[in-house]
Amino acid sequence: TTRISGALESVELGEFEHYMLKEIHEQPRALAQTFAVAEGHRVDDSLFGEGAGAIFDQVSSVQIVACGTSYHAGLVARYWLEDLAGIPCEVEIASEFRYRRRAQHPGTLLVTVSQSGETADTLAALRDATDPAFVGSLVIANVDNSSLVRESDLMFLTQAGTEIGVASTKAFTTQLVAFLMLTIALGRRGTMDSAKSDELVNVLHDLPGLVEQTLQLDAGIKRMAESFIQKHHALFLGRGVHYPIAMEGALKLKEISYIHAEAYAAGELKHGPLALVDDDMPVVAVAPGDELMEKLRSNLEEVRSRGGELYVFADRAADFQDSPRVHVLPMPSCPDVLAPVTYTVALQLLSYHVAVQKGTDVDKPRNLAKSVTVE
Amino acid sequence: TTRISGALESVELGEFEHYMLKEIHEQPRALAQTFAVAEGHRVDDSLFGEGAGAIFDQVSSVQIVACGTSYHAGLVARYWLEDLAGIPCEVEIASEFRYRRRAQHPGTLLVTVSQSGETADTLAALRDATDPAFVGSLVIANVDNSSLVRESDLMFLTQAGTEIGVASTKAFTTQLVAFLMLTIALGRRGTMDSAKSDELVNVLHDLPGLVEQTLQLDAGIKRMAESFIQKHHALFLGRGVHYPIAMEGALKLKEISYIHAEAYAAGELKHGPLALVDDDMPVVAVAPGDELMEKLRSNLEEVRSRGGELYVFADRAADFQDSPRVHVLPMPSCPDVLAPVTYTVALQLLSYHVAVQKGTDVDKPRNLAKSVTVE
Repeated sequence: TTRISGALESVELGEFEHYMLKEIHEQPRALAQTFAVAEGHRVDDSLFGEGAGAIFDQVSSVQIVACGTSYHAGLVARYWLEDLAGIPCEVEIASEFRYRRRAQHPGTLLVTVSQSGETADTLAALRDATDPAFVGSLVIANVDNSSLVRESDLMFLTQAGTEIGVASTKAFTTQLVAFLMLTIALGRRGTMDSAKSDELVNVLHDLPGLVEQTLQLDAGIKRMAESFIQKHHALFLGRGVHYPIAMEGALKLKEISYIHAEAYAAGELKHGPLALVDDDMPVVAVAPGDELMEKLRSNLEEVRSRGGELYVFADRAADFQDSPRVHVLPMPSCPDVLAPVTYTVALQLLSYHVAVQKGTDVDKPRNLAKSVTVE
Repeated sequence: TTRISGALESVELGEFEHYMLKEIHEQPRALAQTFAVAEGHRVDDSLFGEGAGAIFDQVSSVQIVACGTSYHAGLVARYWLEDLAGIPCEVEIASEFRYRRRAQHPGTLLVTVSQSGETADTLAALRDATDPAFVGSLVIANVDNSSLVRESDLMFLTQAGTEIGVASTKAFTTQLVAFLMLTIALGRRGTMDSAKSDELVNVLHDLPGLVEQTLQLDAGIKRMAESFIQKHHALFLGRGVHYPIAMEGALKLKEISYIHAEAYAAGELKHGPLALVDDDMPVVAVAPGDELMEKLRSNLEEVRSRGGELYVFADRAADFQDSPRVHVLPMPSCPDVLAPVTYTVALQLLSYHVAVQKGTDVDKPRNLAKSVTVE
């Protein structure tokens, strides 16, 4: 393939203290370069490689397989593929997928996701997926000519450029853009009309600007981070497509600040984790102004009434007020489909500032490697 | 229906200090009573209610919906239904399932799971599942004439008897038996031959005895529990069908001891949570002697080499040795398909003893209710 990510290949720190911060700030451009391939505001099958159309025509279901942060991108995509494209979708951790005897629906597109294109378990999962139920394989990767790219039928290369920080940032958000474009390509064959697909492509053009606005919240997020440095735990809550965003936010905090952060679907609170809530357990909530807002609000009230301290990332248009033990970070209003990206960026900044204030090695957290190329 | 659970309805504490301990010890009998309906060593369609055969004949996939502990039972069942019965299966948290626009495969059996039969989100999910892709609904519940039982096409009543402890024990393990019987009933229409189905029914008869043997490990587990009372965190690891068992073990510890325990699929360790591992973070591993043993062993070595303290529940026939920072609890050898039950019982005892030694209110942990009948 001939796509070169060029402009982002600089690996100099420049004005930034850490690669992670630099990479967080590169996102507006990385995102724009990733969807720039949709020239003339169209998502063409050919973006996914030769013969994509013929394979897509046979697809009646999608199986996503990935590890770590890439797995979270797949979980977001599941909500989109089912809601917007009307295609059943399953997502599984690669190390689970490959070691069990599965029963697969016929007409399934196998989608792997990996920043490096070399993740060992994901690659093994692809090689193992010989079931005739799979009509083809597609990889979303950030590195051209990587093993997953070479061995998949189809591919979409994200244009994140080199990512040096071990904790993935721009690779994740560009994966989300890739999945949105896949949703459009498959959706056009399913339940998505052309007005909707045009709308989704057009709305992508607002994304770099919205991420810029989110980056400008840095000072407020940095202040919020001060409350976390003495904490050993945190709970991250979200509903719907923002449940995986809460998972990604928790993973980021774990990876670089060594705070034991765990994410829960907000509706599961009463089924166990509420027992953990006390004044030592800060609760972070991803609360975009979508239709699940009212449900989330009542979950948060449960937390507050048990003495929990709340940190709410909420659409500035929503009526969330600061109050004792409720700290609100007002987010730019944005279309539902872009919110997973903007809220991710805000949570990246939160983790970054907590880690810096704790004095950990932000770019090379203990025990972790950038690409997991062994099982 | 006329099934009455009778003998287990006693709600006296008797010789036990807590209901939870009593209910843990009632499991051999509760399990036996639950599979006793398979008279003459056969799993008959009629066990699932009138018209079960006609519905089962149309089933080409299964969608399980539940909350909390019941959700974990569904996750175990997914491995069984795909591996043993050859039927694609998905499992989703009820509060997520009901609030998103889904794309469902035609020929899907909707299976709900709820001890009380009244769990609000699960009931709402059933009522919301009007998609013609569903060929019928089946509930696994412990309470006859409950809302889920009344409103489902089919049902299987577990014979756990009244469960008083908020943290579910015997309800969970009897749900596993129910799912194994459903796997047999559906599997006979799919890839399971009669020799295999006979073997699975027969092996169930060994279960009460194996659980009794596990209960006799109480003193060793109680000693192990002493190491947890000063800890604020724990990581639970499993692979394959034992990943949800690790999830259930972690939830139990959370619920009654307020220790922040989190479960991970062991293969995901390197993708983030390994950063958390230090000498303050005990790691509990579910390590039955199955084919994934060697993989798990290398995951555990990663933990040990980073200074983590390991607590390994391992088949006594496996070659796991105590060593500095590695504490092994030898478990009775048992057929693969029964191990999820015996390992669950051992983890129940661990949580129980940690909670008692910490002095929490074991039967009524803070913030939680027995049945979550509001959303």
